[in-house]
Amino acid sequence: MKGKDANAGDLIKVKTAKEEIEGILIESYESGVVLVKLSNGYNIGVSRENILDIKVVKKAEKSEKKEAEFKLSHKKPIIDLIMTGGTISSSLDVKTGGVKWLTSPAELFKFYPEIFELADICVINPFMKSSENMDSEDWIRIAKQVKKSLEDENVKGVIVTHGTDFLHYSSAALSFFFPKPNKPIVLTYSQRSSDRGSSDAELNLYCSAKMALSDVAEVMLVGHANSSDDSCVALIGTKVRKMHSSRRDTFKPINSSPIAKITRSEIEILQGDYNKRGKANEKFDSDNFVFENKIALVKFYPGQSPEILEHYLSLGYRGVVIEMSGLGHVITEGTNNWLPIIKKVVEKGMIVCAAAQTIYGRLDPLVYSPGRELEKAGVIYLKDMLSETAFVKLGRVLGKLKDKDEIKKFMLENISKEYNDRLGNEFI
Amino acid sequence: MKGKDANAGDLIKVKTAKEEIEGILIESYESGVVLVKLSNGYNIGVSRENILDIKVVKKAEKSEKKEAEFKLSHKKPIIDLIMTGGTISSSLDVKTGGVKWLTSPAELFKFYPEIFELADICVINPFMKSSENMDSEDWIRIAKQVKKSLEDENVKGVIVTHGTDFLHYSSAALSFFFPKPNKPIVLTYSQRSSDRGSSDAELNLYCSAKMALSDVAEVMLVGHANSSDDSCVALIGTKVRKMHSSRRDTFKPINSSPIAKITRSEIEILQGDYNKRGKANEKFDSDNFVFENKIALVKFYPGQSPEILEHYLSLGYRGVVIEMSGLGHVITEGTNNWLPIIKKVVEKGMIVCAAAQTIYGRLDPLVYSPGRELEKAGVIYLKDMLSETAFVKLGRVLGKLKDKDEIKKFMLENISKEYNDRLGNEFI
Repeated sequence: MKGKDANAGDLIKVKTAKEEIEGILIESYESGVVLVKLSNGYNIGVSRENILDIKVVKKAEKSEKKEAEFKLSHKKPIIDLIMTGGTISSSLDVKTGGVKWLTSPAELFKFYPEIFELADICVINPFMKSSENMDSEDWIRIAKQVKKSLEDENVKGVIVTHGTDFLHYSSAALSFFFPKPNKPIVLTYSQRSSDRGSSDAELNLYCSAKMALSDVAEVMLVGHANSSDDSCVALIGTKVRKMHSSRRDTFKPINSSPIAKITRSEIEILQGDYNKRGKANEKFDSDNFVFENKIALVKFYPGQSPEILEHYLSLGYRGVVIEMSGLGHVITEGTNNWLPIIKKVVEKGMIVCAAAQTIYGRLDPLVYSPGRELEKAGVIYLKDMLSETAFVKLGRVLGKLKDKDEIKKFMLENISKEYNDRLGNEFI
Repeated sequence: MKGKDANAGDLIKVKTAKEEIEGILIESYESGVVLVKLSNGYNIGVSRENILDIKVVKKAEKSEKKEAEFKLSHKKPIIDLIMTGGTISSSLDVKTGGVKWLTSPAELFKFYPEIFELADICVINPFMKSSENMDSEDWIRIAKQVKKSLEDENVKGVIVTHGTDFLHYSSAALSFFFPKPNKPIVLTYSQRSSDRGSSDAELNLYCSAKMALSDVAEVMLVGHANSSDDSCVALIGTKVRKMHSSRRDTFKPINSSPIAKITRSEIEILQGDYNKRGKANEKFDSDNFVFENKIALVKFYPGQSPEILEHYLSLGYRGVVIEMSGLGHVITEGTNNWLPIIKKVVEKGMIVCAAAQTIYGRLDPLVYSPGRELEKAGVIYLKDMLSETAFVKLGRVLGKLKDKDEIKKFMLENISKEYNDRLGNEFI
């Protein structure tokens, strides 16, 4: 068998008829695929049948490097860093091809010595998960940790590191749990793991630390401003979305502008009306950390049967966010007419909210008659709120409230900048 | 009652404590809302309780203008214009506040005399619908009309006018029905109705006519390139998405570049490898106009129960496209683990495909182990294909095929530019 002397972790060269690929061998699969990690951090799978030759360029090093000397100063300001998993707190285990979690300050220091120049970093590790496996219970676990940090007068600010894929759901959850925090709460991530030359982790963490020490007491998502490695943006936690599978500047502000631009040397505030740093020993109400899990997010598509709403009603679901058309329409005629079904489930107590699948822009049920009829049937139109943020807000509101009118009032109220009331012509 | 002398169609001035609004009165609702159409084309609803005064500025004109003189030249090239509804083929009926459809060449000429300079426009009107009410049967009705135009040697090209909201589904459907057409098939739209000063209809139609007369025999979506009124882009029918509720340049190329840029004076081709105009009397196979409606599009969200797949299986659904994370993950641990349910429905014959909810970028199941496990469980990873395009392709493929391996092969094959094989570092 070609490359039988190559082991996981070795630097190899794979030759096919079309190309030559150099990288770290991760694994040879039964299925006949050889998986190689390229120097840009990506994995590539090559079919054995296409491989002409495999050469070992360099055997894996057996001894691990000693960890760098690590000590907290006990003089610098303290940042609590809550690690929850994701690429940013992982490094490649070349032997298994899997990831190893970084969980101690010493391990962190090895990869990111620069942030320790700014602050004493206190690492807290409630759990380690990929973000697709997180749910509302995890958001509440993070919130409880954040609450401790906000109430600890020795702590200057909080950073939460997190997987990218569903990070914007967590940033929305923290935004609704802490609408007016007394300190900065910064969520950050990386798209490439820490041990890669192209990793975005170091700059994201450094800029996050700068924001965590700043005067901006908001829930923010901090990450690359563009594809180069020179600046980050701080984005509103309720108005941000992952918009690219792999780019380092994957998080984009939606219907909003960044709060600040951050470079290694300075913070440029772009929005003056942020919540300012408050009393260090303020108390936060844990009773707010509630969530109704019997809710759904439904993306409407052409020809879709409205039976999906009856299905969720039959499962005891209390609410649903429907991603409708740009202004807020679904089918309102023919055999799949949604109007009578929406009327029915609303009468039975279900909360039906509308968000836009266009992502950018604002719903407006008044422009055409279907919108007016749907609103009359009971649909709550969530203006320019992202559907992902709307899902989180609905769970939070239903967790707390039972009364239909009160629920509607809260859904439409601007609690954590989820609505951009100044959304003007520049967005149209 | 304030403004009791104002009737629908009158130009009125509404005074509240905060502002003064001028526009055409559309309707006064029982709910106490006065609905006014502003000069920018938008409707605004004002609560009666906030209204201090309503003044009639100008009564509605009673006589309608005579239609302009209209005659086809019978010398210019012929473009078949298939009208299917939407804002582009509507004008405001000021008396009812509703829309009137434009369905005859004469009415079209009244609003868009310029396109008649380029060609003799033959208006075909199979039906009139808002796009949210269209389904696969409508896509097939449009395809049958397009087929007639493609087979008519007197016709130079085809334009389909259409509502914006689900236009990208229809453009994907026509792309799969006509992977190699012999003439240009152009879909176009407007975001503001034809009778508005800010309407985008005229430029979109003019540029569509120019593309319909060109050498580019592709299914294209033509519309505003930016928010000014000077140029359009022609976008690949399978790689385009409505990205804003109201902007005129709402359609954006996704994981691709425009085919051409079009101004009133010229067409600038941006991609050389397009399908060229072919034989005028080529025959197209109506057997291809099939669609399996027992399919669903599901956007995954954190904490979601995989029971949704079992639900669709119990309804006899044959396939589902899941909008997963950026690389293609869903929950793979704990009580809501999707892996066993995916295995189960795949074993029972359901086709499970993955697209990315990040919209931009490309799935890659090989990077992390959950992706590898999901692929092993039978998920078909649709690389950089849009979820909306994937839904349409799945319906088209299942309408035609029964064999699982053949279905997978066709789903992964690049039939109508739905995959961008050159998606390179500039997108990463």
